[in-house]
Amino acid sequence: MIGALAVRAGLAQPTGCVTELPEFGGAGLPGLGDLVFGGHDIVPTPLEKKAAALAGAGIVPARLVEALREELAGVEENLRQVPLADNQAATAELISADITEFRLRHGLERVVVINVSTTEPAPEPHPAYADLELLEAELAVSQDLLPPSALTAYAAFRAGCPYVDFTPSTGARLPALDRLAGLAGLPYGGHDGKTGETLVKSVLAPMFAQRNLRVRTWSGMNLLGGGDGANLADPAANAAKAASKQRVLGETLGYTPQGETRIEYVEDIGDFKTAWDLVTFEGFLGTPMRMEFTWHGCDSALAAPLILDLARLTAAAHRSGRTGPLGELAFFFKDPLGVVPHALADQWRVLREFAGTLGGEEPV
Amino acid sequence: MIGALAVRAGLAQPTGCVTELPEFGGAGLPGLGDLVFGGHDIVPTPLEKKAAALAGAGIVPARLVEALREELAGVEENLRQVPLADNQAATAELISADITEFRLRHGLERVVVINVSTTEPAPEPHPAYADLELLEAELAVSQDLLPPSALTAYAAFRAGCPYVDFTPSTGARLPALDRLAGLAGLPYGGHDGKTGETLVKSVLAPMFAQRNLRVRTWSGMNLLGGGDGANLADPAANAAKAASKQRVLGETLGYTPQGETRIEYVEDIGDFKTAWDLVTFEGFLGTPMRMEFTWHGCDSALAAPLILDLARLTAAAHRSGRTGPLGELAFFFKDPLGVVPHALADQWRVLREFAGTLGGEEPV
Amino acid sequence: MIGALAVRAGLAQPTGCVTELPEFGGAGLPGLGDLVFGGHDIVPTPLEKKAAALAGAGIVPARLVEALREELAGVEENLRQVPLADNQAATAELISADITEFRLRHGLERVVVINVSTTEPAPEPHPAYADLELLEAELAVSQDLLPPSALTAYAAFRAGCPYVDFTPSTGARLPALDRLAGLAGLPYGGHDGKTGETLVKSVLAPMFAQRNLRVRTWSGMNLLGGGDGANLADPAANAAKAASKQRVLGETLGYTPQGETRIEYVEDIGDFKTAWDLVTFEGFLGTPMRMEFTWHGCDSALAAPLILDLARLTAAAHRSGRTGPLGELAFFFKDPLGVVPHALADQWRVLREFAGTLGGEEPV
Amino acid sequence: MIGALAVRAGLAQPTGCVTELPEFGGAGLPGLGDLVFGGHDIVPTPLEKKAAALAGAGIVPARLVEALREELAGVEENLRQVPLADNQAATAELISADITEFRLRHGLERVVVINVSTTEPAPEPHPAYADLELLEAELAVSQDLLPPSALTAYAAFRAGCPYVDFTPSTGARLPALDRLAGLAGLPYGGHDGKTGETLVKSVLAPMFAQRNLRVRTWSGMNLLGGGDGANLADPAANAAKAASKQRVLGETLGYTPQGETRIEYVEDIGDFKTAWDLVTFEGFLGTPMRMEFTWHGCDSALAAPLILDLARLTAAAHRSGRTGPLGELAFFFKDPLGVVPHALADQWRVLREFAGTLGGEEPV
Ligand SMILES: NC(=O)c1ccc[n+]([C@@H]2O[C@H](COP(=O)([O-])OP(=O)(O)OC[C@H]3O[C@@H](n4cnc5c(N)ncnc54)[C@H](O)[C@@H]3O)[C@@H](O)[C@H]2O)c1
Ligand SMILES: NC(=O)c1ccc[n+]([C@@H]2O[C@H](COP(=O)([O-])OP(=O)(O)OC[C@H]3O[C@@H](n4cnc5c(N)ncnc54)[C@H](O)[C@@H]3O)[C@@H](O)[C@H]2O)c1
Ligand SMILES: NC(=O)c1ccc[n+]([C@@H]2O[C@H](COP(=O)([O-])OP(=O)(O)OC[C@H]3O[C@@H](n4cnc5c(N)ncnc54)[C@H](O)[C@@H]3O)[C@@H](O)[C@H]2O)c1
Ligand SMILES: NC(=O)c1ccc[n+]([C@@H]2O[C@H](COP(=O)([O-])OP(=O)(O)OC[C@H]3O[C@@H](n4cnc5c(N)ncnc54)[C@H](O)[C@@H]3O)[C@@H](O)[C@H]2O)c1
Ligand code: NA
Ligand code: NA
Repeated sequence: MIGALAVRAGLAQPTGCVTELPEFGGAGLPGLGDLVFGGHDIVPTPLEKKAAALAGAGIVPARLVEALREELAGVEENLRQVPLADNQAATAELISADITEFRLRHGLERVVVINVSTTEPAPEPHPAYADLELLEAELAVSQDLLPPSALTAYAAFRAGCPYVDFTPSTGARLPALDRLAGLAGLPYGGHDGKTGETLVKSVLAPMFAQRNLRVRTWSGMNLLGGGDGANLADPAANAAKAASKQRVLGETLGYTPQGETRIEYVEDIGDFKTAWDLVTFEGFLGTPMRMEFTWHGCDSALAAPLILDLARLTAAAHRSGRTGPLGELAFFFKDPLGVVPHALADQWRVLREFAGTLGGEEPV
Repeated sequence: MIGALAVRAGLAQPTGCVTELPEFGGAGLPGLGDLVFGGHDIVPTPLEKKAAALAGAGIVPARLVEALREELAGVEENLRQVPLADNQAATAELISADITEFRLRHGLERVVVINVSTTEPAPEPHPAYADLELLEAELAVSQDLLPPSALTAYAAFRAGCPYVDFTPSTGARLPALDRLAGLAGLPYGGHDGKTGETLVKSVLAPMFAQRNLRVRTWSGMNLLGGGDGANLADPAANAAKAASKQRVLGETLGYTPQGETRIEYVEDIGDFKTAWDLVTFEGFLGTPMRMEFTWHGCDSALAAPLILDLARLTAAAHRSGRTGPLGELAFFFKDPLGVVPHALADQWRVLREFAGTLGGEEPV
Repeated sequence: MIGALAVRAGLAQPTGCVTELPEFGGAGLPGLGDLVFGGHDIVPTPLEKKAAALAGAGIVPARLVEALREELAGVEENLRQVPLADNQAATAELISADITEFRLRHGLERVVVINVSTTEPAPEPHPAYADLELLEAELAVSQDLLPPSALTAYAAFRAGCPYVDFTPSTGARLPALDRLAGLAGLPYGGHDGKTGETLVKSVLAPMFAQRNLRVRTWSGMNLLGGGDGANLADPAANAAKAASKQRVLGETLGYTPQGETRIEYVEDIGDFKTAWDLVTFEGFLGTPMRMEFTWHGCDSALAAPLILDLARLTAAAHRSGRTGPLGELAFFFKDPLGVVPHALADQWRVLREFAGTLGGEEPV
Repeated sequence: MIGALAVRAGLAQPTGCVTELPEFGGAGLPGLGDLVFGGHDIVPTPLEKKAAALAGAGIVPARLVEALREELAGVEENLRQVPLADNQAATAELISADITEFRLRHGLERVVVINVSTTEPAPEPHPAYADLELLEAELAVSQDLLPPSALTAYAAFRAGCPYVDFTPSTGARLPALDRLAGLAGLPYGGHDGKTGETLVKSVLAPMFAQRNLRVRTWSGMNLLGGGDGANLADPAANAAKAASKQRVLGETLGYTPQGETRIEYVEDIGDFKTAWDLVTFEGFLGTPMRMEFTWHGCDSALAAPLILDLARLTAAAHRSGRTGPLGELAFFFKDPLGVVPHALADQWRVLREFAGTLGGEEPV
C-alpha cells in the first residue's frame, strides 16, 4: 500500500509487481494509481505507526513514509475495526455495509475484498458448509459457525464484491459460498500467497520431473519472525500451511517424496524469512545426488506487490463477467483453487492467456 | 552406455532418461535396445577398465559391470583410436570410413555422431571457416586448421551422419560446416550438455523474471574433479565454459547481473561436482533479499542418459528429414544453437512439440 | 568394531580415533589390538548380516567385511541377547554374570561396559533413584523401575566394571548409582556421543563468545535416517536429545539465544545425517550478521572410533584407580557429566592432561 | 571510531570489542574513552561524508552519526593527507612530525600507529630490506624503495611509536625495520585482521585435527564489495591475501588439503562479505563426509572494534616495556607474526595470559 502510493507518486519502481511487466500491458488492468485502499482489522493500530515500524525494520525506506504522510492519513480514514453483532448474519451485514459505504464514498466501480489477516485453524466440518440455505439459517443464530475468513467472503459476496484469499484460511472454499458466488455472478481467488520456499519448489520440482530424475526426499525448514511466524508456531494454524507447502511436490512430481516442511518462529528474524531445503535425488543407475537451497526473503516486500496484482486482475475478471473460482491465478498461490497446473512455468502461461481475455478500459 | 545396456537387460531403471518419460511415448523414437555403440578416443583405455573405475567410485553398481561383462566386450570391438593421416582432409576420410564401416557391419539404418571428448580451446578465426570450398582446399594441406570437434563434424557429415556436440567446443558451429550439413540434408545439435548449475539457473532465472524481482548479482563457484575438471583448470578451455554458463541469465532476465561463474579443479571430488551459487535480488521498494543453492551432482550419471536421449531424438529427426541446426534440442544444452528460449520450461514445451513431429516407425 | 579389527589387521588407518593421535602416545592406553569385543542386544541379528548391511550402504568397504569374516565370527560368539528374569534384581544378576563370564573366558584384566543402544525416554522421578538401599529393595519386586540403561549400569557396577553411556539415556546418572560406583571404586562416563552438529557448535559458540559478538538466534535442523533417526522421531526420546544439543550454547555463551534444534527422520538418508544450522549475530553498533552451515556426516563412522577411545581411556582410568564421574571425557559428549567446560578447545586440553595422569603399562 | 565515540558517550554497547570482555578487566588497559583518534589518508574525503555513507548503507545507525556530529568534527581536525617529499627519507620525517605533533597537541602518553589502508602488492626483494644502515642510505635517494605500509612503520618507529598492521601489506615485516624497533625499544603487531572466513577456519580446522578426521579438500569463495573488494580484484594484491587465508590450514592440520580460496569483487554486496567454504573429510575406514558454511559478515563492523582492541593492547604492551613482534596478538590476525599457535582457542589463551602481564594504571 505504501508501495502502491509510492509508485503512484513516482517515488519508487514497481519491482515485484507482476502486472507491471510488459506482458500485461495490453490487459486493460486498472492502473496502480486508480486503486483506493480500505480495510478491516481487529486491532486498531494506526497506519502511521505500522509504517514507522516497517521503516524502523528497514523494509520501507524512511523517506517514503515521510513523503507519503498525507496519503497514508487518507487511507487511515478508510480503515475500520471488524464489526461484531449479536449473530454472524448480523455481523456479515455490518461488514457488507462497510464495504458498500466505502465503494460509494469513493465512487468506485468495484471493490475487491482481499483477506490478508492472521491464518486461522481449519474449522470442523459442518453440514451447513455445503448448503447455502442451511448456512443462512444457522448464521442467524450462531456466533461462530463460520471462521472470520469465510464470514468475510460471505459478506463480500452479499455486497456484490469479488473475494481473494491470500492466506491458507477457509475463505470462500465452502460449497455453500461457491454457490453464493455463482448466484451473485462473482469471481473469487486463493489460497495462500506463494512468496518464498514454495515459489522455488514450483520451479525446481518440474525441473526434476522433466529430467526424469527421481526425488527421494524433500525436507524444509522455515524460520520466520513477524506476526505470521508467531501465529504459525501454533500447530493448528501451522498444519494448514505445511500441507499447502508440500502439495506442489505431489502435483508436479506425480509421487510424494519423503520429508516434511517445518515452520519455526524466531522472533529475532523479524519480517524476514530464512528457509532451507534439502532435496536428495537419484540419477541414472541409482546414483544418489543432492541439492540444498537457502532462501532469505522479506515476506512483506514479496507479498505487497502481489496483492496489488491480485486486486487488479480480479477487478478486471469481475468486469469481464468471470464468475466462480479463478484457477488462472494459480501463479500467485501455494494452494490454488481448482484443478490447475502446479509448475510455475505452466501457471505463468495460463496467467498470461487469462490476462489476454480481460481486455477493456474501465477503471476499478 | 553401461546404463543403456543395463536398462536393455532389464537390470536398471531408465532414471534421468528424458525420452523414457510418457510424454515421448508416441514419438516413434528408436528403442534403447536398438542402439549400438561405437566411438573414437585418443587414449586406448579398455572399456572394462573404465567400467571398473566407475564401479570403484560408486557411480555404477559393481554388480552391473559384472553382469554386463559380455555386452561390454561387444562394444569394445566398436572402439577405435582417433586416426591420424598426413593432412586433415585425409584424416577426415579415415574417420568417415570408420563410421561407415561401423554402420555397415551392424546393418544400422543410421549413425548419430556425438562429441563427448575433452573441451577444446576456441580456435582463432580463419577465413576458411566461412567458406566450404576454401575449407576443403585448406584441409588438404593443413594439419591443424580445424579443431578435432569440427573435423569430426566434417567427417560425420561427409559420411552422411548427423552430428551432436555435448561439449562447448566448436563442433559444427562454423558457416562452412552448416553449409555442408545443408547440402547433405543432415541435422546437427549442441552445445554443452546442461547437467548441473546451469540447469538450475534455467529455472530460477525465469522465476525471478516472471515475478518482476530484480536480480542484482549472481555468482557461482563450481568445484569439480574428474577429467573434465582437470582440463577446465586450463583458463583457455574454461573461458568457453564459463561464458556458456552465464548466457542463460542475460537471455532470460533481459539484463546481465553482476557476478561470475568460477570453475575450480579439486581432484578429490572425483566425478561429483559441487556448485554453489549466490543470488542477490531486490523486491518492492528496493528491499534486498538473497538466495543460495548448493548442487552436488554426479556429472556422468547426469550426462549419460541425456546422450541416449540425444542419439534417439537426432536419429528420429534425421529420419523425418530435418536438416540444419536443431534448436529444438535446447532443453539439453547450456549454449543451444539458434535463437531459442533459455527458460527450461519453454525449452521443454518446444522439445515436446518437436517430438510430436517426428512420428514414424523405423529403428536407427 | 569392524574398524578396530581392520586397524589391528593393518587393513585400515585409525582415522577418527582420537587416542591414536601422537598426543596420547605416552598415556599407556591399552592397544587397539588388545581389545576384545562382546555385547548385549535385544534383537539377535547376526554380526555378519549387520556388517553386510554396512558394506551395502557404502559405510564399510566390502573388502574389509570379506577379509575379516573370521574375526567377526569370533566376536559373534561374544554376543548375547539381553537376559530377562522375573524381576529387575534377577535380570541384573544375569547381566552381571554374562559380563563376568566374558571377562573370565577371555582372561581379561577388565571390561568396560558401553551403552550404545536405542535412546530411551527419560523415566519419571522415583524416590529409589536417590537411595541405593531403597533401590535394591525395589528392584527385587519390580520389572520396570529402572530404564534398561540404568539397569545395565547397575549390573556393570555389581560386576566390578566401569560404565560409559554414549546415549542420552539415564545410564549411571542417578544418585543411587553414583553411590554404588563410589562404593565399588568404579569410574563412569557419559552422556551422548558428540559426533556432528553439536561438535561444530562446541567450537563456533566459543568463537562468538571470545570475539564478544552477540548471538541472537541459533536454529538447527537435523535430518537423519537409520535406527537412531526412527527412534528419535518419537517426541519423548527426541526431547532428551534436543535439550542436550542446545546445552552447549548456554554454557559457552553465558546466555541462551533464541531458536531450537529439530530432529526429523528421513529414512532415505540412511546412516548419514544432514544438519543445517542458522546463526544470526550482532556486531559493533548492532550490525546484524549471519552464518549458516551444513554438516553431512556418517554417524556410525564418526561414533565407532570414539567408542574405541572411550573404552581405552576408561579402562586406563579404572586401572589408575579413578572413581566416580569422569568429567575429563567431556570432549566426547554432548551432555557431559559434572561441571566441566563446554568449549571443545578447553575439553581437549582437559582430556590431554587427564591422559597424562593415566600412565602405566598393563593391558585391559 | 564512530563506535568508540558512541560507546564512550553511552550511546552503544561495545559488542565485538574483545578487550571489553570481563577477562580483560584487570589488565589495566587504557579506557575506550581515553583514546584520541587521528590519521593519514591519500584521499581527503571528510569524515562526515564517510559517516553519512556508512549510515546510508545501514552499517552505522543514522541517529549515532547525528548525535556524534560534534565529536566527529573534533576527530576531523586530526586527519591529514599523507605527506609527500622529494625522497622517502624526507617523507618519513614529515609523517613522524605529524605523529609527534598530534601526540603533543593532545598531551598523549603514547600513540599507536595502525595501518588500515588499501592492501599493497608485495614488493620485490631488495638488499636494503635486511640492513638498516643501507635502508636509511637508500631512502635518502629513493622515491619508491619502501611500500607505503613499511614507510609508515619506519616513520612510526622514528617517532617512538609502536606500529600495528591490520592489512596483509609489508608493514614492519622487514629485518631492517625489526632492528629499528629493537633499537628504539618498540613493539609492533600484525598481520591482516581476522574477521571472517579465516576466523571460522581457525576453529574448525583444530576441531578436525583433534578428532583425527582427515580433511581432504577445503575450498573457499569470498564475494565482497567495498573498497577492499575492488582492490583485491587485482591479482597482485589478492595473492598475498589468499595465501594468508590458507596458512591456518597447514599450521593447524599439519598438512595442506587440496583447494583454494578465491576472492571475487561484487560491487552490489557493498561492505558485506559472503564467504562460502566446502570442506570434504574422511572418517573411520575412509568414509567420505562434508561440511559447508556460509558466512555473511559486515567487514567494517567486525574490524572496527578489533582496531580499538589492538590500540589498547599495544599501548599497554608499550607501556610495560615490550619490544619487537607481538606474537601474542595472533588471536586478531590471519597471518600472525612469529611462531605462534594458529588454533583460535590457543591464541585466546595466549592473549589472556599476555593481558595478565600488562597490569599497571597509566592511560595511553
Ligand atoms: N509473504 C507473506 O507475507 C505471506 C505469504 C503467504 C501468506 N501470507 C498470509 O497472509 C496473512 C498475513 O500475514 P502477515 O505476515 O501480514 O501477518 P501479521 O500477523 O503481520 O498481520 C495479520 C493482521 O491480521 C489482523 N487480523 C487478525 N484476525 C483478523 C480478523 N479476524 N479480521 C481482520 N483482521 C484480522 C491482525 O490484527 C494483524 O494486523 C497470514 O495468514 C499469512 O499466512 C503472507
Ligand atoms: N555432465 C557432464 O559430464 C558434462 C556436461 C556438459 C558437458 N560435458 C562435456 O563433455 C566432455 C567430456 O566430459 P568428461 O567428464 O567425460 O571428460 P573426460 O576428461 O572424463 O573424458 C574426455 C575423453 O575424451 C577423450 N579425448 C580427448 N581428446 C579427444 C579427441 N580429440 N578425440 C577423441 N577423444 C578425445 C579423452 O581421452 C577422454 O577419454 C567435456 O568436454 C565436458 O565439458 C560433460
Ligand atoms: N553418531 C552416532 O552414531 C551417535 C552419536 C551420539 C549418540 N548416539 C546414540 O547411540 C545410540 C545408538 O545409535 P545407533 O545409530 O547405533 O542406533 P541403532 O538404532 O542403529 O542401534 C541401536 C541398537 O540398540 C539395540 N537395543 C535397543 N534396546 C536395547 C536394550 N535395551 N538393550 C540392548 N540393546 C538394545 C537395538 O536392537 C539396536 O540394535 C542411540 O542412543 C544414539 O542416540 C549415536
Ligand atoms: N574486516 C576488514 O575490514 C578487514 C579485515 C582484514 C584486513 N583488512 C584490511 O584493511 C584494509 C582496509 O580495508 P577497507 O575495507 O577499510 O578498505 P577501503 O578501501 O575501504 O579503505 C582503504 C583506505 O586506505 C586509503 N589509502 C590507500 N592508500 C593509502 C596510503 N598509502 N596511505 C594512507 N591511506 C591510504 C584509501 O584512500 C582508503 O580510504 C585493507 O588492506 C584490508 O585488506 C580489513
Ligand atoms: Na548450504
Ligand atoms: Na547455504
